[in-house]
Amino acid sequence: MSNQSVNPRTGEKFGPIFISTSLAAIDETISLSVLAFESWSRTKPSERARILSAMADALDEHTESLVDIADEETGLGRVRLTGEVARTTFQIRAFAKALSVNLFVEEEIDEVQDGAPPQGHPRFIRTLRGIGPVAIFGASNFPFAFSTFGGDTASALAAGCSVVIKAHPAHPQTAQLTFDIASRALAGAGAPAGLVALAHGYECGTLMITDPRISAGAFTGSRTGGRALFDLAQSREYPIPFYGELGSINPVVALAGALDDPKAFVTSYLDSLLMGNGQFCTNPSVLFTPESVSLVAEIQEQIATRDLAPFLSEATKKLHDANRAQLIHSIEAISCEGKTVDNPGFYSTPLVLVVKASDINEQISDIAEECFGPTGVVITYTSIEQVIALLRQMEGALAGCLFASETDVAAPRILDALASMCGRVAFNAWPTGVAVTYGQHHGGPYPASTSSLHTSVGTYAITRFLRPVTFQGLPIELYETMNASLLKGIRE
Amino acid sequence: MSNQSVNPRTGEKFGPIFISTSLAAIDETISLSVLAFESWSRTKPSERARILSAMADALDEHTESLVDIADEETGLGRVRLTGEVARTTFQIRAFAKALSVNLFVEEEIDEVQDGAPPQGHPRFIRTLRGIGPVAIFGASNFPFAFSTFGGDTASALAAGCSVVIKAHPAHPQTAQLTFDIASRALAGAGAPAGLVALAHGYECGTLMITDPRISAGAFTGSRTGGRALFDLAQSREYPIPFYGELGSINPVVALAGALDDPKAFVTSYLDSLLMGNGQFCTNPSVLFTPESVSLVAEIQEQIATRDLAPFLSEATKKLHDANRAQLIHSIEAISCEGKTVDNPGFYSTPLVLVVKASDINEQISDIAEECFGPTGVVITYTSIEQVIALLRQMEGALAGCLFASETDVAAPRILDALASMCGRVAFNAWPTGVAVTYGQHHGGPYPASTSSLHTSVGTYAITRFLRPVTFQGLPIELYETMNASLLKGIRE
Repeated sequence: MSNQSVNPRTGEKFGPIFISTSLAAIDETISLSVLAFESWSRTKPSERARILSAMADALDEHTESLVDIADEETGLGRVRLTGEVARTTFQIRAFAKALSVNLFVEEEIDEVQDGAPPQGHPRFIRTLRGIGPVAIFGASNFPFAFSTFGGDTASALAAGCSVVIKAHPAHPQTAQLTFDIASRALAGAGAPAGLVALAHGYECGTLMITDPRISAGAFTGSRTGGRALFDLAQSREYPIPFYGELGSINPVVALAGALDDPKAFVTSYLDSLLMGNGQFCTNPSVLFTPESVSLVAEIQEQIATRDLAPFLSEATKKLHDANRAQLIHSIEAISCEGKTVDNPGFYSTPLVLVVKASDINEQISDIAEECFGPTGVVITYTSIEQVIALLRQMEGALAGCLFASETDVAAPRILDALASMCGRVAFNAWPTGVAVTYGQHHGGPYPASTSSLHTSVGTYAITRFLRPVTFQGLPIELYETMNASLLKGIRE
Repeated sequence: MSNQSVNPRTGEKFGPIFISTSLAAIDETISLSVLAFESWSRTKPSERARILSAMADALDEHTESLVDIADEETGLGRVRLTGEVARTTFQIRAFAKALSVNLFVEEEIDEVQDGAPPQGHPRFIRTLRGIGPVAIFGASNFPFAFSTFGGDTASALAAGCSVVIKAHPAHPQTAQLTFDIASRALAGAGAPAGLVALAHGYECGTLMITDPRISAGAFTGSRTGGRALFDLAQSREYPIPFYGELGSINPVVALAGALDDPKAFVTSYLDSLLMGNGQFCTNPSVLFTPESVSLVAEIQEQIATRDLAPFLSEATKKLHDANRAQLIHSIEAISCEGKTVDNPGFYSTPLVLVVKASDINEQISDIAEECFGPTGVVITYTSIEQVIALLRQMEGALAGCLFASETDVAAPRILDALASMCGRVAFNAWPTGVAVTYGQHHGGPYPASTSSLHTSVGTYAITRFLRPVTFQGLPIELYETMNASLLKGIRE
C-alpha cells in the first residue's frame, strides 16, 4: 500500500510516494515509545516546557516551507496556513507555559487529619502522571493545528506522554516535514529517542489503537472513521480513553433585534459558513432566523459573489455531495446557490437552503446531519418555543451561538438551551474561530466529542492525558527523594 | 421475575418478595428523571448542599433500622455496618460542603485579551453543568457506602444530576429502606419529584444503561457484570461515560527492614486480607515478602485462630470457590489454611498460598486473578528486580502498598513501580480503609476502573458528572441574568 499527495485545485498527483509503514516497524516504534514514555513522564515539568518551546521555535523558523507544501496539498491558501502555523506554535507554547508554572502537574497535599475515620485520615499527596504512550490521528482540515503536531500531540507531550502519530493521507508531505522539523528540534533539546513517531498508511491506525502498549487515543475527523477507532479502543481487553472529535452542526440563533443590518449580518454569516470551504468543525451548519425578517434575497445576492475554494480531497468532496443530495431530497426549501466552476479540481457550488421551522418539525435530525462543506441551512421560525423544541431534537455540538441584544428577554432561555447541547456558547459571534486559552472548551456531547468532559483546545486539554495517583501516608522527604532519584536515574 | 432476601449466615430466604420493575415503569421513571434533572441541575449549589445535608441527617437518624436489615441480608456485622452508615453520610456531607464553598462548580473567568489571534481573545466564562440523568449500579459488599445512596449517587446528585438506581439483588430490603428514607428526606427538603428512583430486577440494568435519555453510568461490582454494562454503554448510538470499578489485586510489597516483628506484621496482614471476608475491592490479594524472612509458620498459626465470616451471597461464594480451585491447580504453593465450618450458610475456609517468585515468572497473570473472598497469595522474592518485573506484568489496581523503612534505598523504585499500575500508593499501611477526603484517589488502570482519570471516592468524584460549557463574549450581567431567571423559572 502506498499514498501520494494530490493537489485539490487541479486533481493532479505530485511528490514522493509514501509506502505504508510495515507491521514490524509499528511494533518497533511502539516499543521505543514505551521506553521514551518511561523517561519523559519522569522529566521535570519545567524541563519538558523548555524542550517543547524549542520545538515551537523550530516550527516557527520553518513556517515558509511548511506553508508551501501544505498549500499545495490542501488548497487552504497561504494566508490562512501562515496563521495556522502561528496558532500551532502558540498552542505548544501555551502548554509549555502551563508546565513552567506547574499548572495541572503540581501535587496537592491533603494533610493528616487526627481522629477516627471517617473524619481522621493520613496525609495524601495527590499527583498527576502521564497516562502512557498515546496514538494520535490528525485531521485533514487543519494540517497544522489539529494534525501532526497540533493540540492533541502538544497536550499529550506536555502531560509527559510519548506519541505515535498517524500521518493524514491527504497531506503526507506536510505531515512528514512537520515531523522532521519537530523531532529534530526535540532531539536537539534533549528529549528521549522515540518520544515522537510518525506512521503512514491505513492499517497502522488499527494497529496503533489496538496495541496493548498504547494507553490513549486522540482523533479529529469524520464520524465514520472516528467511531470505528472509538469502537476498537473500547472493545480492547483493556479499554483506553479515546478522545474523538467527530463533527458538529453548531446551531446559531438570531433574534429579530440582532438583524437591524441584514446585509452585514449575511456577509458575516457567509464568511463563517464558507470559511475553509465549510470544512471547519465549527462552521454554522444551521442558522435560525425569524420568519419576519427574510434574508433570502440578501443571501442569494451575496452568495453569487463568493469565490469558490477547493475541497481538501476528492473523498471529502464526494461525501459532501452525497450528503447534500440527500438533504435537498429530504426538505422543501428555497435554494440560494453560488457560482459554479468548470475545473478538474475538487470544487462544489456554495449553497444555502432556507426552510420554515413549521415545515420540518420531526425531520430536524435529517436536516441537522452535518454536510461537511459549503452548505448551510437557514430555518425561519415564528416563535422562540419552535427554536427551543428543534434545538432539543438536535445532536450534541461543539459550539452554539446567539445573536441578540443584551436585554432581549428571550436571550437567557436560548443561551441555556444551547448550553444543554453544546460545549461552547458564543454571544453575538459566529462559531468559527476557536481561541487557544485557559477558559476555552472545545468539546461537547457526542458526536461533537466522544468525551464531553474534555476539551481538545485550550490549557485544559492536557488533563486528558494525566492520570491521578495519590500517595498515602508518605513522608514528604521520601516523596522528594523518590522524585529526585527517578530524575537522576533518567539522566545517568 | 422476582427476588427475595437470603440470610448468608443460614442460607434461608426471608422477607418480602420484590417483583422486577416493569419496562413501562422504567420508561416512566426515566421520563421523570429527565424533568427532575432539568430543574435540579439549575438549582443553586448552596441549595443543593442544604438538601443533601437533610438527606444525610435522615439516614443518620435511621442508622439502627438500616443496620438491622443490612446485617440480616449481608452478614457483615453490626459494628462494621454502623460505621459504614456513618461513612456514607460523612461522604454525602463532604459533597454538600464542597458545593457550599462552590468547589468544582464555580465559574472561572478568562478575561478579554486585546490583540489579534492567537493572542487576543474575547471573555470566556468556563462553567460546569450536570451531565444529565445517571444510572447507578450499587455494589453488594458495601450496602451503604457503595450502594443505593453511596458515593456514586451522592456525587451525581451533588453535580446536579438526577439518578436512577438499580437495587442490588443481594440486599433488596436494605436498598428499599435506604431509598425510602432518603427520597422522603429529599422531597421534604424541596428536591424535585423524580430526582431519585429505585428499580428492582435484572433486566432493568440493561434498559437503564441503553436508554438514550441516560447520560452516564456508575458501577461497582464484578468484572463480568461491569464489563457487560460498559460494553452496552460504549456501543450505544450515543456512547456515554461509564465509571465502573471492576475489581483489583492491590499488591503489597514488604522489604526486609519492615519485618522486624513478623508476628505483628502477619496479624495486620490477616486483618486486612480477611476484612469483610476478603470481599473488599481493596483487600491485599498479593503480598511480596523476602524469601529470607519466612512467614509460613506465623501465618499458619494465626490463620487457624480466625473466625469465619459468611460470603455476601451464594453466588459470591461459588465464584470464589471456583477461582480458588483454579488458582490452587495452577501453582505449586505451601497452603496455610484456616478453620472449616459445618454450616448451611455461605462459608469457605480462609486460605493463604505461599509461592516462590522464581517458581512463577510468566504465570503471574494466573496468580494475580482476583479471588474475591478469604484467599491470599504470598510471593517470596530474592531481589527487588524480581518484584518489579512481576509488578509490571500485573493488571491495574486500585491500591498498592510498600512496607519499608523511610531510608531504604529500594523504596523510591518500588513506590514508582506501584504508582505505574495503581491509583493509590500507601506507605506502611494496608490497602483496606479508604479515606473520604479531598486528596483521595480511588481508581486506577483497568480493570480497577474503566476510567483511570476518575475517582469514585473523595471530593473529586463529583467531576465525573460535570460537563464543561464555556460562554464566549457574554456580558457578565447577561450571564447573571441567565442564572437568576433560570432559577426563578424553576421555583415558579
